[in-house]
Amino acid sequence: MSRVAFIGLGVMGYPMAGHLAAAGHEVTVYNRTAVRAERWCAEHDGRRAETPAAAARDAELVFSCVGNDDDLRAVVTGPDGALEGLAPGSVYVDHTTSSAAVAREIAAQLDAAGVAFIDAPVSGGEVGAQNGVLTVMCGGTEHAFARARPVIDAYARACALMGAVGAGQLTKMVNQICVAGVIQGLAEGLHFGQRAGLDMEAVLEVIAKGAAQSWQMENRGETMLEGRYDFGFAVDWMRKDLGIVLDEAARNGASVPMTRLIDGYYEEIQALGGNRWDTSSLIERLRRG
Amino acid sequence: MSRVAFIGLGVMGYPMAGHLAAAGHEVTVYNRTAVRAERWCAEHDGRRAETPAAAARDAELVFSCVGNDDDLRAVVTGPDGALEGLAPGSVYVDHTTSSAAVAREIAAQLDAAGVAFIDAPVSGGEVGAQNGVLTVMCGGTEHAFARARPVIDAYARACALMGAVGAGQLTKMVNQICVAGVIQGLAEGLHFGQRAGLDMEAVLEVIAKGAAQSWQMENRGETMLEGRYDFGFAVDWMRKDLGIVLDEAARNGASVPMTRLIDGYYEEIQALGGNRWDTSSLIERLRRG
Repeated sequence: MSRVAFIGLGVMGYPMAGHLAAAGHEVTVYNRTAVRAERWCAEHDGRRAETPAAAARDAELVFSCVGNDDDLRAVVTGPDGALEGLAPGSVYVDHTTSSAAVAREIAAQLDAAGVAFIDAPVSGGEVGAQNGVLTVMCGGTEHAFARARPVIDAYARACALMGAVGAGQLTKMVNQICVAGVIQGLAEGLHFGQRAGLDMEAVLEVIAKGAAQSWQMENRGETMLEGRYDFGFAVDWMRKDLGIVLDEAARNGASVPMTRLIDGYYEEIQALGGNRWDTSSLIERLRRG
Repeated sequence: MSRVAFIGLGVMGYPMAGHLAAAGHEVTVYNRTAVRAERWCAEHDGRRAETPAAAARDAELVFSCVGNDDDLRAVVTGPDGALEGLAPGSVYVDHTTSSAAVAREIAAQLDAAGVAFIDAPVSGGEVGAQNGVLTVMCGGTEHAFARARPVIDAYARACALMGAVGAGQLTKMVNQICVAGVIQGLAEGLHFGQRAGLDMEAVLEVIAKGAAQSWQMENRGETMLEGRYDFGFAVDWMRKDLGIVLDEAARNGASVPMTRLIDGYYEEIQALGGNRWDTSSLIERLRRG
């Protein structure tokens, strides 16, 4: 068992840190809103630190899961950031979905302090985090990955090293591009079928057996038909991810016209007040269109 | 066992008619190009008719699988069409992917002659037809469906009645809309990942376990990475289907902006000479972009 720190107890980080404690690791947590960290400590018999630096002190591995690039910089290299507490030889694993650029930037700064960095965005959502069955896409050295993986396994069903630092983030971006296309196609198909007056439950049952099948069809088809979006992966988060995708695509010369379009569709969902709706809410703008 | 006729021995109809013969039905075939019908008869010990009318004569069930709306009109209600040979009380099952409108039009004309019509487009492609594991989406009466289904089962893994005449075609359209979105998303994701220098085989293995998973990812991901499109469901056929989708969407007021866009992308693929390429070739225009 290891001495670890977990920075950022949001909807993902809170249960992930819980799985680390349940696995027997000695966990110190830091969260910007202290009351949430206090609640976590009460539930898991853990220790709370006042700053990321204090959380990182004496930890063999430090994990974080925060909002965006700026939040990540703040908790690692900002005042009282983890960098001030990290010991040489320790490993820093970041589960935030960030740009590949910030992952490389932070990795360079940590490397200078003798600390290995792994960018490790996840997929599987809140339910995956709660059940400890996340997919973790890592970028870093094999040596650092070998040290982190047994600990990450506490909340992962799959954990793979995709390449050097940044490769985890780039893999997550591929994932989000695919998801966006699947959902928009599904939304148009279901909307079309409803307008045509079909029994859509029956339609889903039939077409899910063939070339149109997708995880989204099987897990979001029915709720899309019902117009329920009060769960799942929020539109605000998806827009953050797609923003990263579009920046990176511009940088590496990849053509992603539909992804760009769908990002605009999500902007319209936000304008409808759907910031916290599930990503499957793309069907709603077709209905109101 | 039944006396049946099969009109249209294309890449789909040829093996479908073969499964009917193998199941023990007495099959008479008609094909515009006679030599193909002769070959079929030699292989299956079947009987060839000179016209659709002659094929339909004495048949309890008549099947067709032809190119488009006009081809369907020609073989049913044109000169020497099946209508001239069909006996009252027989059932006509059409496997062509057509408009819902032509299905209703032909159903009305057959109804006047005492013949029941079922629109029954399929999914599963050439391989599905060869292996007899197609998904068949039917529109018609329960009575007609009950008579046709045991015969259709010779080449179907799933066969469902979706509603009145036209509902089979509309279900197929929902399927094609979903497929289009999945493929374009997958194409952009894979193209992005290749430009970013990722090990894409490894990426596919990881993301196919989560929310980005799709039949297309599992069955077309690798060939898309390799740029191989010399198989599968041809772009020309997909454009025909999407044309039907867009007409129908305009009629019922459904908003399908991405489907419209992807139809234009397929037009670009045709301009690249990709008429016979698999639908997964959408990635090619991104690469050449």
